[in-house]
Amino acid sequence: MNIRPLGERVVIRKLEAEEKTKSGIVLPGQAQEKPQIAEVVAVGPGGIVDGKEITMEVKVGDKVIFPKYAGTEVKIDNEEYTIIEQSKLLGIVE
Amino acid sequence: MNIRPLGERVVIRKLEAEEKTKSGIVLPGQAQEKPQIAEVVAVGPGGIVDGKEITMEVKVGDKVIFPKYAGTEVKIDNEEYTIIEQSKLLGIVE
Amino acid sequence: MNIRPLGERVVIRKLEAEEKTKSGIVLPGQAQEKPQIAEVVAVGPGGIVDGKEITMEVKVGDKVIFPKYAGTEVKIDNEEYTIIEQSKLLGIVE
Amino acid sequence: MNIRPLGERVVIRKLEAEEKTKSGIVLPGQAQEKPQIAEVVAVGPGGIVDGKEITMEVKVGDKVIFPKYAGTEVKIDNEEYTIIEQSKLLGIVE
Amino acid sequence: MNIRPLGERVVIRKLEAEEKTKSGIVLPGQAQEKPQIAEVVAVGPGGIVDGKEITMEVKVGDKVIFPKYAGTEVKIDNEEYTIIEQSKLLGIVE
Amino acid sequence: MNIRPLGERVVIRKLEAEEKTKSGIVLPGQAQEKPQIAEVVAVGPGGIVDGKEITMEVKVGDKVIFPKYAGTEVKIDNEEYTIIEQSKLLGIVE
Amino acid sequence: MNIRPLGERVVIRKLEAEEKTKSGIVLPGQAQEKPQIAEVVAVGPGGIVDGKEITMEVKVGDKVIFPKYAGTEVKIDNEEYTIIEQSKLLGIVE
Repeated sequence: MNIRPLGERVVIRKLEAEEKTKSGIVLPGQAQEKPQIAEVVAVGPGGIVDGKEITMEVKVGDKVIFPKYAGTEVKIDNEEYTIIEQSKLLGIVE
Repeated sequence: MNIRPLGERVVIRKLEAEEKTKSGIVLPGQAQEKPQIAEVVAVGPGGIVDGKEITMEVKVGDKVIFPKYAGTEVKIDNEEYTIIEQSKLLGIVE
Repeated sequence: MNIRPLGERVVIRKLEAEEKTKSGIVLPGQAQEKPQIAEVVAVGPGGIVDGKEITMEVKVGDKVIFPKYAGTEVKIDNEEYTIIEQSKLLGIVE
Repeated sequence: MNIRPLGERVVIRKLEAEEKTKSGIVLPGQAQEKPQIAEVVAVGPGGIVDGKEITMEVKVGDKVIFPKYAGTEVKIDNEEYTIIEQSKLLGIVE
Repeated sequence: MNIRPLGERVVIRKLEAEEKTKSGIVLPGQAQEKPQIAEVVAVGPGGIVDGKEITMEVKVGDKVIFPKYAGTEVKIDNEEYTIIEQSKLLGIVE
Repeated sequence: MNIRPLGERVVIRKLEAEEKTKSGIVLPGQAQEKPQIAEVVAVGPGGIVDGKEITMEVKVGDKVIFPKYAGTEVKIDNEEYTIIEQSKLLGIVE
Repeated sequence: MNIRPLGERVVIRKLEAEEKTKSGIVLPGQAQEKPQIAEVVAVGPGGIVDGKEITMEVKVGDKVIFPKYAGTEVKIDNEEYTIIEQSKLLGIVE
C-alpha cells in the first residue's frame, strides 16, 4: 500500500525522539512551532507545477527538516505520514 | 447523466469506510480536518488553465487523497460527488 | 435585448427545480452554499484576458454547474441572469 | 472640458431610470449591490497596462453593465461621471 | 530645488479651488474620498519598473485626476507636493 | 566597517534637520507618517532580484526621499543607518 | 552533522554580543524588532526557485544582517541555527 504524491509533493514519516538523538540532532523542548525532522518515503514527479518547472531535489531516504504545522497528515496501514510540498522543506540533514 | 469538469478540475466520489478498510488505508478517528480518500470519476481536459499549461496526471478510477474541505459538493442522480482542482489533490493511492 | 459579456465572462440563466429534475440532477435541500445549475445564454469573446490567453470552452445552450454566490445578477426584460467568469464554472452537465 | 482616461480606464455616465426603461432593461428594486448601466463617454488608450497587453473592447456610446461600487466618481461641468477599468465592466448591452 | 521621481512616479501639485473652477471642473462638496485634481511638475523615467515595461504617458504641465489618499505628501521650499505612481492617476483633464 | 546591501537594497543615513534646511527642503512638523530625506551611503548590486531585472538608479551620495517607516534600521560604529529596497525610494532630491 | 539547505535558503549562526562588539557593530539596546548579525554556515544551491533563477550571493563565513524574527530556528548538536531564505538577508557586513 503506497501513496504516490502529486506535483512537487513528498510523503515523509516523522522521526521519533530516539532516532533524532541517534543522529545527534536535538530539537528544543518547547517544540510547539519549531521545525521537525522526518524521513522521505515517497517523492512526487515534479515537472511543471503551477506553471513553474520544479526539479525534485530530495529522494527517498533523505532526512529532512520541515516546519511542524506544514503539510497534511494521513494514516496508512496504521502508520502516520505527512504529505508536504518540497518547497516547504527547509533542508536535508547529512 | 454526467458532469464534464472544466479546466483542471476532476469529479471524485468519496469512498465509504469499508472501502477504505479493504484498501488497507485508515483515516484517523477525529477526521475533522484530515484528508479523505475518493475515486476519480471524471477528469477535466487540462491544457492552458489561468495562463498555465496543466497536464492532467490523474485518470478515471484512480484513488486519490484530498483535503476534506476542498472542492465543491454536488448531487447527481442521488449520488454525491465533489468537484475539485487536480492541484488540490495530495496524492494517488496505489 | 441582449448582453454581450466582456472578456471570459458568460451570461447564464438559472434552471428551475423542474428543469433540474427533468435532467436527473438534484441539488441538496439545504442548498445554501451548494453549486447551482444554469444554462449558458451568451459567451464572451475570450482571447487575452488579464494578460492570459483564454479559450472559451462553454457554448450557448450548455448546462453548467457554478458556485451559488459567484458572479453578478442582472435583470433584463424582466428575466434574471447571472454574469460570471468562465473560470468559475465547475463543469458542464451532459 | 474632457477627461482622457489613462491605461485601460474608461469614463462612463450612469443612465437614469427612464433611459433604462426605454432600453427594456430593468434593474432590481433593492439595487444596493447590484450592477448598474452606464454609457461610455471616453475610452483610455489601452496598450501595455501593468505589464499586460490590453485591447480596448468598448467604445464611446456603448451601454455597459458595471458593479455599482466599482470605479471612482468625479464631477465635471456639473455632471457626474465614473472612471473605471475596462476589466471591471461586465458586458455590453445591445 | 527639485525632486526627480524614481521609477514610474510623478510629482504633482494639487490645484486650489479657484484653479479648478477656472477650468470648469468642480469636485463634490464632501470630497472626503473623492478624487482630486493636480498639475504634474515632475515625471519619473519609467522603463522597467518591478519587471514590467512602463511608458510614461503624462508630462509636466498635465492636469491629472487622482484618488485623494493615494501617493505620499512632501513639502519642498515651503510648497506641498505629492509623489504618486503614474498607474494610480485616473486620467488627464483637457 | 561597511554594509554591502544585497539585491536591490541600499543603505541610507537620515539627514539631520539642519542639513535639510541647508538644502531648502523642509518636512512638515508632525512628520509622523511623512517621508524623510536621507543620503545614500551604499548601493546593492541589483541584477535579477526575485526573478526581475533591476537596474540600480541611485548612487552613493544621492539625497533621497523615502517613507518614514519603510526599511530596517541598523546601528554600525555608533551611527544609525536604514537598509531599504530601492523600489521604496520615492525620488532623488537635486 | 550538517544541514544542507534547500533552494535559496542558508543556515546562519547568530553572533554573540562580544563577537559583534569585536566587529565594531552594535545593535540597539531594545533590539526587539531590530535586525541581527549572524555568520553563514551553509548555503543552498540556488538555481530555479519557485520558477525564478536565483544566484546565491552569500558564502560560508559571510557575516550577514537579517531581520530578527525571519527564518526558522533549529538546534543541532546542541548549537542553535537559523534557516532563512537568502532574499530575506539585508546585507553583508565587511
